[in-house]
Amino acid sequence: MLYEPLQVSADALNYTWILVASFLIFFMHAGFAMLEAGQVRSKNVANQLTKNLLTWSVGVTMFFLVGAGISGLVGGSDFAAGFTTSGTGWIDWLYGAVFAMTAATIVSGAVAGRAKLRAYVGYTFLLAAVIYPVVTGLTWAGSHISFGGAVFTDFAGGMIVHGMGGVAGLTAAWVLGPRMDRYNDDGTANVIPGHSMTFAVLGTLILAFGWYGFNVGTSAIIGEEFLGAQLGRVAMTTTISMACGAMGAGLVAWFKTGKVDTLYVANGLLAGLVGITAIPHTTTWWGAFVVGGLAGAQLPVVFGFVENTLKIDDVCAVFPVHGSAGVLGTLLFPFVAAPQFVDSVVDAFVAQVIGVAVITAWTVVATGVVWGAFKATGQARVTPQHERDGLDVSEHGVETYPEFGEDEGVVADGGLVGDQTSSERRSGGGTVVTNENVAAQRGDDE
Amino acid sequence: MLYEPLQVSADALNYTWILVASFLIFFMHAGFAMLEAGQVRSKNVANQLTKNLLTWSVGVTMFFLVGAGISGLVGGSDFAAGFTTSGTGWIDWLYGAVFAMTAATIVSGAVAGRAKLRAYVGYTFLLAAVIYPVVTGLTWAGSHISFGGAVFTDFAGGMIVHGMGGVAGLTAAWVLGPRMDRYNDDGTANVIPGHSMTFAVLGTLILAFGWYGFNVGTSAIIGEEFLGAQLGRVAMTTTISMACGAMGAGLVAWFKTGKVDTLYVANGLLAGLVGITAIPHTTTWWGAFVVGGLAGAQLPVVFGFVENTLKIDDVCAVFPVHGSAGVLGTLLFPFVAAPQFVDSVVDAFVAQVIGVAVITAWTVVATGVVWGAFKATGQARVTPQHERDGLDVSEHGVETYPEFGEDEGVVADGGLVGDQTSSERRSGGGTVVTNENVAAQRGDDE
Amino acid sequence: MLYEPLQVSADALNYTWILVASFLIFFMHAGFAMLEAGQVRSKNVANQLTKNLLTWSVGVTMFFLVGAGISGLVGGSDFAAGFTTSGTGWIDWLYGAVFAMTAATIVSGAVAGRAKLRAYVGYTFLLAAVIYPVVTGLTWAGSHISFGGAVFTDFAGGMIVHGMGGVAGLTAAWVLGPRMDRYNDDGTANVIPGHSMTFAVLGTLILAFGWYGFNVGTSAIIGEEFLGAQLGRVAMTTTISMACGAMGAGLVAWFKTGKVDTLYVANGLLAGLVGITAIPHTTTWWGAFVVGGLAGAQLPVVFGFVENTLKIDDVCAVFPVHGSAGVLGTLLFPFVAAPQFVDSVVDAFVAQVIGVAVITAWTVVATGVVWGAFKATGQARVTPQHERDGLDVSEHGVETYPEFGEDEGVVADGGLVGDQTSSERRSGGGTVVTNENVAAQRGDDE
Repeated sequence: MLYEPLQVSADALNYTWILVASFLIFFMHAGFAMLEAGQVRSKNVANQLTKNLLTWSVGVTMFFLVGAGISGLVGGSDFAAGFTTSGTGWIDWLYGAVFAMTAATIVSGAVAGRAKLRAYVGYTFLLAAVIYPVVTGLTWAGSHISFGGAVFTDFAGGMIVHGMGGVAGLTAAWVLGPRMDRYNDDGTANVIPGHSMTFAVLGTLILAFGWYGFNVGTSAIIGEEFLGAQLGRVAMTTTISMACGAMGAGLVAWFKTGKVDTLYVANGLLAGLVGITAIPHTTTWWGAFVVGGLAGAQLPVVFGFVENTLKIDDVCAVFPVHGSAGVLGTLLFPFVAAPQFVDSVVDAFVAQVIGVAVITAWTVVATGVVWGAFKATGQARVTPQHERDGLDVSEHGVETYPEFGEDEGVVADGGLVGDQTSSERRSGGGTVVTNENVAAQRGDDE
Repeated sequence: MLYEPLQVSADALNYTWILVASFLIFFMHAGFAMLEAGQVRSKNVANQLTKNLLTWSVGVTMFFLVGAGISGLVGGSDFAAGFTTSGTGWIDWLYGAVFAMTAATIVSGAVAGRAKLRAYVGYTFLLAAVIYPVVTGLTWAGSHISFGGAVFTDFAGGMIVHGMGGVAGLTAAWVLGPRMDRYNDDGTANVIPGHSMTFAVLGTLILAFGWYGFNVGTSAIIGEEFLGAQLGRVAMTTTISMACGAMGAGLVAWFKTGKVDTLYVANGLLAGLVGITAIPHTTTWWGAFVVGGLAGAQLPVVFGFVENTLKIDDVCAVFPVHGSAGVLGTLLFPFVAAPQFVDSVVDAFVAQVIGVAVITAWTVVATGVVWGAFKATGQARVTPQHERDGLDVSEHGVETYPEFGEDEGVVADGGLVGDQTSSERRSGGGTVVTNENVAAQRGDDE
Repeated sequence: MLYEPLQVSADALNYTWILVASFLIFFMHAGFAMLEAGQVRSKNVANQLTKNLLTWSVGVTMFFLVGAGISGLVGGSDFAAGFTTSGTGWIDWLYGAVFAMTAATIVSGAVAGRAKLRAYVGYTFLLAAVIYPVVTGLTWAGSHISFGGAVFTDFAGGMIVHGMGGVAGLTAAWVLGPRMDRYNDDGTANVIPGHSMTFAVLGTLILAFGWYGFNVGTSAIIGEEFLGAQLGRVAMTTTISMACGAMGAGLVAWFKTGKVDTLYVANGLLAGLVGITAIPHTTTWWGAFVVGGLAGAQLPVVFGFVENTLKIDDVCAVFPVHGSAGVLGTLLFPFVAAPQFVDSVVDAFVAQVIGVAVITAWTVVATGVVWGAFKATGQARVTPQHERDGLDVSEHGVETYPEFGEDEGVVADGGLVGDQTSSERRSGGGTVVTNENVAAQRGDDE
């Protein structure tokens, strides 16, 4: 217990820190939106952006009404322990919600370009209400996973958030099947490049910024005393692992192709962050080099395995970035930790293996059942015609870049339209300013 | 009074929090810049970006030299109460300045594509020096608006900042008249889609990130004790209202057109944030659902009313997003507040109505007079030729995307040019690398 | 010494503030990436982005392993004083690292479009390990530069970080020589406009946001007492100087060309920030107007001098923005400071001159030697063919915008590719989805 009047200071600083961390983690949605938008074709960008906006909107609402309560229930207390109705409880809730929505939004990158909007939103609804809360109930809320004297360790969600999201994304992409033209009849894969490397890298750097909130923000500031030792370790390991992830992926790509692939470097940086997220508070400085380097280096290898062996079309590489990197870091825990943090390497490692296995199994089953049900009822995937036209037009009635690219001839609207229906607008009839009109007007003057 | 030595801690933490909030609110300028840039044609993007940069630069200077003092004067103390020359006073000043500049920058979205740069900058000058400071002098500084026992309530500027900005934008757009080709001879409206949905959504998410500073940052951390109850309530209501705004607007758009319009979802998210901004510290959790849902749902309706009935060309929908949503949330105050925050629903509601009416009337009159004067002297609007060519070339001598789009043949420069005049550069004469040159060079090698 | 139990609060708040500042400064990498990407041709964007990612990754690793230790050594203690292995020491290290990486990343903007990736990475390696740490060892760590009673003053790195980076960039660009087609045979300069003003302005605003961490974050919160006076002054001078920088550059550009050049306004805003960075804690409010206005106004002039007289191709104008603006602000110190901060104007000014001279000389020599060695061994610059094709394809095997622009016919990939080599992919053979294929597919349906 702190010297009494200091408790006000400690509460104030700890909760302020949680708020700042929550804001930073929320901002990761901008990162995911840009990273994913950059990695899809221009005809599917607005769809990807809408999914990200609705992931947050629908997900956070469900996590408020149901999810937080389910987490409390599974954790061993009761529903009301999650569904709080008081001030600081709401701060804790927001902090939990931003983690939950990170897990949710990872999935949208895997199923890009062919999932129906209503299927995706439906899955997000269930993920926020039940699937993810069961995982946190088993772990952070309830500490139900342990072996010998060791409890499953996941500091900031390397497995609970990122591993879970990556596994869910891979499962959903597997059930959905690949985008058309992704694989040839002989099973070889085609590359479908994203439309903007700039947005992808911007998203990467926004995510890295937010990740400091994710990891460092997870450490309290004041406990019995100032927790500077933990804060400093988390800040250092997060930084070093991120750097080594970028270098690891870049080097492996360079060895394989002779070029330093920009997207591998960017996604490697993220894989380095995912890798350390379960264990930033215990890892040694040399361990951060190991975790980051391996998390980055596995990215091209696992991506090739998913693409060419599993033949799953994981559009934004969410499994190698979030899934396998999260598993890797979680399992490395006892081998890279400073000695004072591990009593028994064997107990700790087995606890980690059990935790990874339980979370993976639950996520695969729950995700597979939900997407399987959508598929069985014909609700999982858009029609081939809609997929070819792009989901922006078919699902949202908009075009992302009406003035650029191949689709210049397509009539589109910027969204804020009065009382015309979309089909009326697309049929033209003189009420729409098309690019041709504009070009013609310009021509008159030049 | 706190136990004495704790006062140092409390001051330090409260002022640090104000600084963090101010930085986040400043970052909203990046959000506005992207949101507005994405919603205009590519020929007007640099103009929109320049307006945003100058809004901040000119506005903050005027708010320092004059505006803060005017606010103090109107508030009932004196000019010097605003124009401070000491340390923590400057922290308070910066905090006031970022709110002021938010109100100012909203206007640029309404007058996009046809306002003269000098007119816009002139209006910003007056808004920062006088128009906005009068509003804060009447409210936050002076608490001059009340009814019975109730004082006009606006926690973080739902009406004072956003409502004021939205009303000012609508007024300015009305005086200016619509962009050419926006309306047909029979009065029907044409859609002029923005050039990049990606930038628009990026801007939306940057704004939402900054909004946590706007709302949660407005709450002090430590008063007589740790203010966790208020901080938590503000964080929760801000989050829920934002989510319900996105869903509300998306659902209404879906009902009307059968598509989930991306831009409605994005702007709905912002309308949900605007809606709660006056009242996040008092609203119940169910009230946040109501406020956000209604703020989002009114967006397509009010947008249609402005477009088709008022026939005002509010390019970036600033009135439905900031104006009507701000009014809505401000008026809902006593009906969605937890009981402990309202003594008399009638008194409170009347005070809110008076506040909304006074701010609206002042803003309409002041804005109408200024833009009317510009119009009367022919300074409000660019020439039709300049409007057709785009404001980037005519007002700034630059092209935003010299390698893309319809305008590839136009010679442009990236801005940092030595001592040639723009017209010299545009006449070419072998000193300019045009796209044709580059294409020719490429062709030689292929 | 504080009343004892408050020391926990003070430590906690000061270190938390350092962490928040470090996160904000890290985010400036997103700003530099966007600012530079926007200012280069579309064929070199991925190269610029990769350089920024690797600057951080390689640089922070070297600064951890070597650089921080060198700084300690030069500073007069020993290597171990820099290479810390404990908690709060790691917080201080991260804070030092984000400053170091800012200096490093500035250089990439100057050498854009023609430097070999391996040369740039090699230089970054040495900058992070030795070149920059020598500068901080002489100044912040060791206070070795002084005159009379005055020690060289640089609060947050106006000269140590930005001046050093700007000088290094100019030197490297001078050694490398200009991009092809930048100068004609008669010595006149051609303008090569950047590909996206939107990304450039986005980067500007991200940088300005992070700069609050850079400057205000450099002030401690609690020393012997709450340091509100210093915090407030830094916040105010940073804001005013930024605003006046934008206006100063915009006005000079307007006088010269009759247009308000967007990129000058944006870069002027940054020059205003650079100008105040050495002295935000001492400058008067009117001094902030002077520093910002001059830092902005010198930008077009110095840019023209570099372009037309020195004939150095400083692509992103890093010398006028970071170099000369940093020198200017550093030298203005005693003339714009509040009286209580300067004992002897002469002593202070001479100390500033010595500091600027020493840092400039060391940076020019070290940078010149390294890039000179690269040049002598043919490792500095890509081949003319690669420069013409763009560095994205030749160095990274990617295309930034495969669906837009002049290069639509070029086969490209989005980066995450399995086990095909890049050349295999480029040769096509049915395994690559080209834009033509997609267009053909679309054509079938329309």
